[in-house]
Parts: sequence; structure tokens; C-alpha cells
Amino acid sequence: MQLLNTFIKDHKKRVESKFDTIVAGIDAPEELKKSMIYSLQAGGKRVRPMLLYAVLESYNQDKQNGDSAASAIEMIHTYSLIHDDLPAMDNDDLRRGKPTNHKVFGDATAILAGDALLTHSFELIASDNILDDKVKVDIIKLLSNAAGASGMVGGQMADMLGEGKDLSAEDLEEIHRHKTGDLLAVSLQIGAVIAGAEAKEQECLCRFGKHIGLSFQIKDDLLDVEGDEKIIGKPVGSDEGNDKNTYVRLLGLQGAKARLKWHTESAVKELDSLNADTDILRQLASYIGDRSQ
Amino acid sequence: MQLLNTFIKDHKKRVESKFDTIVAGIDAPEELKKSMIYSLQAGGKRVRPMLLYAVLESYNQDKQNGDSAASAIEMIHTYSLIHDDLPAMDNDDLRRGKPTNHKVFGDATAILAGDALLTHSFELIASDNILDDKVKVDIIKLLSNAAGASGMVGGQMADMLGEGKDLSAEDLEEIHRHKTGDLLAVSLQIGAVIAGAEAKEQECLCRFGKHIGLSFQIKDDLLDVEGDEKIIGKPVGSDEGNDKNTYVRLLGLQGAKARLKWHTESAVKELDSLNADTDILRQLASYIGDRSQ
Repeated sequence: MQLLNTFIKDHKKRVESKFDTIVAGIDAPEELKKSMIYSLQAGGKRVRPMLLYAVLESYNQDKQNGDSAASAIEMIHTYSLIHDDLPAMDNDDLRRGKPTNHKVFGDATAILAGDALLTHSFELIASDNILDDKVKVDIIKLLSNAAGASGMVGGQMADMLGEGKDLSAEDLEEIHRHKTGDLLAVSLQIGAVIAGAEAKEQECLCRFGKHIGLSFQIKDDLLDVEGDEKIIGKPVGSDEGNDKNTYVRLLGLQGAKARLKWHTESAVKELDSLNADTDILRQLASYIGDRSQ
Repeated sequence: MQLLNTFIKDHKKRVESKFDTIVAGIDAPEELKKSMIYSLQAGGKRVRPMLLYAVLESYNQDKQNGDSAASAIEMIHTYSLIHDDLPAMDNDDLRRGKPTNHKVFGDATAILAGDALLTHSFELIASDNILDDKVKVDIIKLLSNAAGASGMVGGQMADMLGEGKDLSAEDLEEIHRHKTGDLLAVSLQIGAVIAGAEAKEQECLCRFGKHIGLSFQIKDDLLDVEGDEKIIGKPVGSDEGNDKNTYVRLLGLQGAKARLKWHTESAVKELDSLNADTDILRQLASYIGDRSQ
């Protein structure tokens, strides 16, 4: 675990160290930039960049090659949280124990900060001065697809449409496959593209990502029931209070745990056929299922 | 004018004919796709695609080469209208005489439809099967810059921050330079990139665009005072009622008209040094200043 802890610490620092410079370099009204940086620096596990860097580590690639994509992915994840928290959406006042963006800057600025983060993520990749044009185009194609209507945004829409309805476990899995899974999976796939991995290996990593994306969500649902409030940054049991469709509600505590275990094991199996040193990816897969926040 | 009318009619049809296919090709919840297509097909002058196609016409280029960029730019323009109309922003119930997106689909879906349109615009360019990778990267770089915090989104933010304040004509021009001008100007610049025009010519077209972007906004302000309600699709005088900072308010009717004339003339001068048949661009510049809607 020492290796994993050091890896997580180093790469969390790596991605977080870029945001101030990125936002400072934008010529825009200060209030907008403050709102963007507020949510970018509001903490979080940085799981998506972590997965991208873990692929580069596995293929023994220079981490610099992944910096713009890692930042872009985390900016997209951040914009999605800002918009999801809005009163018109989930109406959340707190995230990770801090006031949400719109509570600090107002709804209008929060909407615009989200729009700006999403837009800038593509500028960041297109302006990268290490990657070649083909790789940039491939990354933008994959990322926009995973983040858009057929991916994350569509998943959020499906989640909203499912609210208050009795869903099957399959329906719920389909929602999370897009809402959480697509952006996690594409982080791995983009890492593979940057590393120049063969198409077959890219697909394995993408499937690995889809499984751990679902593990990640199931673990979130479990933490809402069994977690420590002080560590998870929100009240335990809030999903139940909000009448949310969760894995625990649909499968029971033991059922959800069994499903989590199955996804983690299925993920790790995908790594067997890779021509890479996948130690850190295996450890990350276990961490995602075992984490306390 | 016959030439211009035919050009406008043909290219309005050209860009509008793509949207159904683009949205139909997305694997997403139907309600989200309905909301996206509702605003894409809600009419409008399609000025930005028109300008892009006019550059291709000037350089005698195949229009097909501009289709994905033209659609992408109009999708970005459309998303910005959806988000601007939200209750948290301008709180508009009508646009072009029709209920705004959130009035039909609800605020949450409108936010997501905007996010999806913005994201898909980049996917569209990255997935284009005619343009080469370098051109795609250049387009995405220009477009994301013009649409984001340093361009359109920043302009919208500055506009909001200026509400209720006494602005100078220079402040107002700076706001519109970004809010309206940057996306208009980049439409021309992207046309020049696709046509393979030299950097110097790209810059002339960009300056042409900045001038007509401001003409466009001044004309909008004039139409709000002098326009025909039935043609402009909103009540005459609504800007004054909303206490908006407009050119007419700051410069007076005659002052605004003089400024419009100056921008149109300055725009047209930029075309003199181009190695292209710029007839249609000259006519579009006049049309933007003379239009009745």
C-alpha cells in the first residue's frame, strides 16, 4: 500500500498544482475566474486524473504527456458537479463539507463557471505543446463523447427522469454506466491513447474503467449508509432521506457488496492481457472498492 | 441583392438541414434530444454559419469542408441562448416569439441540453471525416477560446456584472466585443483556416468579424427601439424596460447609427487586401447593418 499511497499523493498534487496557472492564464472577469478556481480547488479524490496517470505509469510513459488531458478531465468533472448542485438540479448546499459554487457565487455565475470549465477543457487539449495533432483529435473525440449527451450528461438526464420511479438494478446500472462510468472509463482510454497502446489494449482498459466506474458508484452508495460523516463530508443516510435510487436500496447491503466485489474482480481480470506493468492499476481498483471517502 | 438573398436562403437551409441528423445520431434519453432539437430548430438568422460559408465562397472552396464547423458554431450559439434565457440568468420566457427552452422542458433539462450542445460541438469537429487533424485542432483551439471564459462566456459574465451600473460606451463595447463579437469573428477565422488562407488574411477576416460583430449588436439595440414587433419577435422597447445598457441609451439614436456605420465601413475596408472574391462578404456586412430582424 506504500506504493499506492505515494502514487496517489504525488499525482493528486500534480493535478492540483496546475489549476491556478491554467485559470490565471485566462483573460476573463475576475469573479468568473474566482468561481472556476473555487470549485477546482475544493478538494476531491482526483480519481480520473489518477487513473490516466496510472496508465502512463503502467506503460512507462512520461507523465508530462498526460498533464493537459488529466487537467481537462478533472475540469469537466468539476463543471458537472457545479451544474448538478444547482437549485434547478439536485439543489445541494454542501459538497465535501464546503458550500457549493452557487451558494458562494450565485446561480448565474455558477452556470457560467461550469460552461467556462467545460469549454476550456477542450482548449487545453487543443493547445497542448507535446502531443501530436492526431492524438489530440483522438482525445477530444473520446472525451466529448464520454462527457456529452451519449455519456455523462445523458446519464444525469436519465438519473433525473428516474427520480421517484421504481427502477430495477439494471436500470440503475445503466444510469451509472453513463453518469459516472463513461468519464472514468475514458480517463483510462485516453491514457492508453497517449501511451500509444494498441486498440485491443485500449479496449481492455476501457472495460476495466467501466467496471471500476460501477464499483466506484456502489461504494459511494455504501458509504452513504456505512461511512463516517466526518470523512465523507456529508450526512450519512442522506440518499435515503432524498428517496434516491441506490444500489443499497435495490440490492440490499449484502447484495450491493457482492456486486461491488464482482465489478472489482471483473475489472482486474481485464488487466491480465495487457503488455504493461499494471501493478498500480490493480491497487487503484482495490482502493476504489475499499476507500473510506 | 438577389445574389445575397439566394446565398442566405441556401445556406440557412444547408445548416438547418443537418441538425436533425446530428441529434438523431446521438444515443441519449429522448427528452434530452427533444430539448436540444427544439432550440436548434427554433429559427434564427444563422449569421455565424452564414459568415463561415461566405468565406469558403470567397475562396472558392467546397462548402462540405465547412459543414461540421458551421453546425458546431451554431450549436454553441444555441447553447448560449438556452443558458442565457434561464431564470437564474436573463429569465426570458420568449425567444423569437416562441417559449424559451426551460419554459417547455424545465430548468434542469435546459441546463443539460445546453451542456450537451456545447460538448457535442467539439465532438462534431473532432469526428469530421474531411478535414485533416491539424485543421481540426486549429478550429477547436480557436472555437473554444472564442466561446469560453476569455470570449463569449466572459462577455456574458461582464454583461451581468455591468447590470444596473452606469457604463461608458467603451465599457459596453468591451462587453459586446466578447459576448457577441468573438463567436462571430471566429466563424470567419475558422472559414479562413478551412480555406487554407494565409495567416495575414485570417487576421483581416478576424478584424472584419470583430467590426461586424459590433455592427450586429448596435443594430440589435436599434431594432429594439425602431423595429417591427412582428418581425423581431419580441416587444419593442423591452431593453429600456429592463434597464439594459444599450448603444441607444449611451450614444443616443443618431450616435448609435453613426457608430454602426463606422463599424460597417471599417469592416469592409479589411476585405480590400484579401486575395479572394469578397463580394458576398461585403453584401453580408451591409445586410447586418440594414436588416429588419
